[in-house]
Amino acid sequence: MPLLVMKFGGTSVADLERIRNAAQKVRAEVARGYDVIVIVSAMSGKTNELVGWVNETSPLYDAREYDAVVSSGENVTAGLMALTLQEMDVPARSWQGWQVPIQTTSAHGAARFVDIPRANLDAKFAEGFRVAVIAGFQGVSAEGRITTLGRGGSDTTAVAFAAAFGAERCDIYTDVDGIYTTDPRITSKARKLDRISFEEMLELASLGAKVLQTRSVELAMRYKVRLRVLSSFDETDEMSGTLVCDEDEIMESRVVSGVAYSREEAKLTLVTVEDRPGIAAAIFGPLAEAGVNVDMIVQNISEKAQGHDRPVTDMTFSCPVEQVARARKALEAARDTGAIRYDGLEVDEDAAKVSVVGIGMRSHAGVAARMFSALAEEGVNIKVIATSEIKISVLIDRKYMELAVQALHDAFDLDKTG
Amino acid sequence: MPLLVMKFGGTSVADLERIRNAAQKVRAEVARGYDVIVIVSAMSGKTNELVGWVNETSPLYDAREYDAVVSSGENVTAGLMALTLQEMDVPARSWQGWQVPIQTTSAHGAARFVDIPRANLDAKFAEGFRVAVIAGFQGVSAEGRITTLGRGGSDTTAVAFAAAFGAERCDIYTDVDGIYTTDPRITSKARKLDRISFEEMLELASLGAKVLQTRSVELAMRYKVRLRVLSSFDETDEMSGTLVCDEDEIMESRVVSGVAYSREEAKLTLVTVEDRPGIAAAIFGPLAEAGVNVDMIVQNISEKAQGHDRPVTDMTFSCPVEQVARARKALEAARDTGAIRYDGLEVDEDAAKVSVVGIGMRSHAGVAARMFSALAEEGVNIKVIATSEIKISVLIDRKYMELAVQALHDAFDLDKTG
Repeated sequence: MPLLVMKFGGTSVADLERIRNAAQKVRAEVARGYDVIVIVSAMSGKTNELVGWVNETSPLYDAREYDAVVSSGENVTAGLMALTLQEMDVPARSWQGWQVPIQTTSAHGAARFVDIPRANLDAKFAEGFRVAVIAGFQGVSAEGRITTLGRGGSDTTAVAFAAAFGAERCDIYTDVDGIYTTDPRITSKARKLDRISFEEMLELASLGAKVLQTRSVELAMRYKVRLRVLSSFDETDEMSGTLVCDEDEIMESRVVSGVAYSREEAKLTLVTVEDRPGIAAAIFGPLAEAGVNVDMIVQNISEKAQGHDRPVTDMTFSCPVEQVARARKALEAARDTGAIRYDGLEVDEDAAKVSVVGIGMRSHAGVAARMFSALAEEGVNIKVIATSEIKISVLIDRKYMELAVQALHDAFDLDKTG
Repeated sequence: MPLLVMKFGGTSVADLERIRNAAQKVRAEVARGYDVIVIVSAMSGKTNELVGWVNETSPLYDAREYDAVVSSGENVTAGLMALTLQEMDVPARSWQGWQVPIQTTSAHGAARFVDIPRANLDAKFAEGFRVAVIAGFQGVSAEGRITTLGRGGSDTTAVAFAAAFGAERCDIYTDVDGIYTTDPRITSKARKLDRISFEEMLELASLGAKVLQTRSVELAMRYKVRLRVLSSFDETDEMSGTLVCDEDEIMESRVVSGVAYSREEAKLTLVTVEDRPGIAAAIFGPLAEAGVNVDMIVQNISEKAQGHDRPVTDMTFSCPVEQVARARKALEAARDTGAIRYDGLEVDEDAAKVSVVGIGMRSHAGVAARMFSALAEEGVNIKVIATSEIKISVLIDRKYMELAVQALHDAFDLDKTG
């Protein structure tokens, strides 16, 4: 029988009524002829309650005990979902991670999948069970301890099961009805996409469209698992939501698929840095160790500056505003030890990042030019530019962010289908 | 190293502060040189919340899913207790039922122990762990499903571990500080017992002194596990609480140890029942099937009554008041099918049961006479009498119950030590 994976997040199973609502969607797929693996999160709020208790008990907690405690929320939802399905005459049972068993590494709190053996579930499907309800976000280590997968773990569980069981598709039910060309709060012209490629989704996810965890998209891309994002609060059918898939499945020719943004960015410039081989490593090594997520990096052309006998340069980079203090401290520490030398650190905390993303860029020239002229027409000054194969990002003044997103959405005709 | 089992019920682990308080008691025993197996219940209220969700989801629930859901409360407490102990520098880890593994039958919701293999815990104790924190009330079936043990399951878990690991003692921490000669709410003369035998405890437990579950006392008696009942809210030491033990360990010579009572009893009399072999089975079989807990039974002397050509008798029995309607229905159904014949059913719903319990009765004559005369002096009429080797129970008018308990407590000098 063809098989689907369906994943329901915390808000989709927040109470018994929502669990029933989710179960009805499962029943509909069973009626269409699918065997279904359902992945559930904890009822919303439950995991936070458990995490709060652990933190209050033991600020530097034993991660094995943390995992034993916080995994219990998913176990409750799994049992309740199985019972709800049984009430609807759908043959179902719940599975905790160790029962499958979902084998993971022993990296408690951030475990990775080692294997998901099919035998136990396959045997139950062969007996006539139509639905296996799996507690998401958890697994079991080789030592027999309960592990958890870290943030977004339930999405990753869903993709991993879809890969292991060769599912036709992995449907991620959430509180939005799909992936949009940009944030609808910024422009009402934002349009839901029917399809988007894995690569595009990765760029959009890491840029702030927080619908799917990056890790689950990466896993889906690697195993070519077709992901669908759709709303658990709407009536849904085979055409609902957005399909995240291999680019071969995307027929429409589109240069740009979406406009992403990140509001709280800072631009830091190290002025008059000694320019020598290894200087980038000497700067960005300490920043990485300090946990600063450096994003865009620009190095000016090296020149012989006045009063310097060796070549010097300016090094500019961006990071989230909240990490500026940490970055400053790390750089000053590196200067104090003599690891780097610079004359000054200029910090601009009023920046935002806007990006256009699209696999069509690979074969279409002129995307950057179109982007820059659209911004210029609105009088938006560009502070930093960074490009990848399918993305162009610019750092601009924060006050122009909404304007820039709207202008780019219009410039690339994203409100039009196709 | 000598080993103790310590069990903490729901009110003793109701919040993080109480868990800390319980952990301090564990640490004190570790400091005295014991390895400790701690059995924990769910934080009070948690199990009821989970049971409520299951009942609302599926009134005729799949007991396997019920068990998977409700067992999660104990898992949370076990992890939090282990973390709390670690914070106190006591090497501890939590164990869920399947990790031990606590092997049980597949009777979900009322499972019984099959085996508790020692290997996994012994290995950890050998590594230097001093405390194993076990989620009470649960186990795992041969099919790999989570089971629960039913009411009082955590007490039973504690006794089973004490038996399996040859514990020196099994301490049951609860919200009372021991077993009393009678209910202190009825007479302020009630006195805490230092020791009581298993047999006496069984009679007291089933009669309403709801401190220990009958099943756990039975198990303790079978495996000669010394049980101690004590308060988790008091300062405690080696002499605290009440020790429930084999009667060989009880030095004091005491005829009566306690006075128990049961307030809501009903007396039912089947009038003019045909007296023939098998009539008792014909009456009490249907009552048992209807779930009526018949307690005392008295059959009057058989006689040839007027208008009857065969011997007839009156059959009197007691049961909880709340089961009277069920009993009446079962008896009338049996009469309708012709299985039994009787002229009438008299029901007295205003009864209470008072019992004196003591292993000394075996060797002391005159206990019944002393009991009856004490009641007669207070003008209390006795409706039904039933006796066992170590117990005499009487059914009386409910309004005299407190008076009877006080009179018997005085008559047997229970307020005096020794």
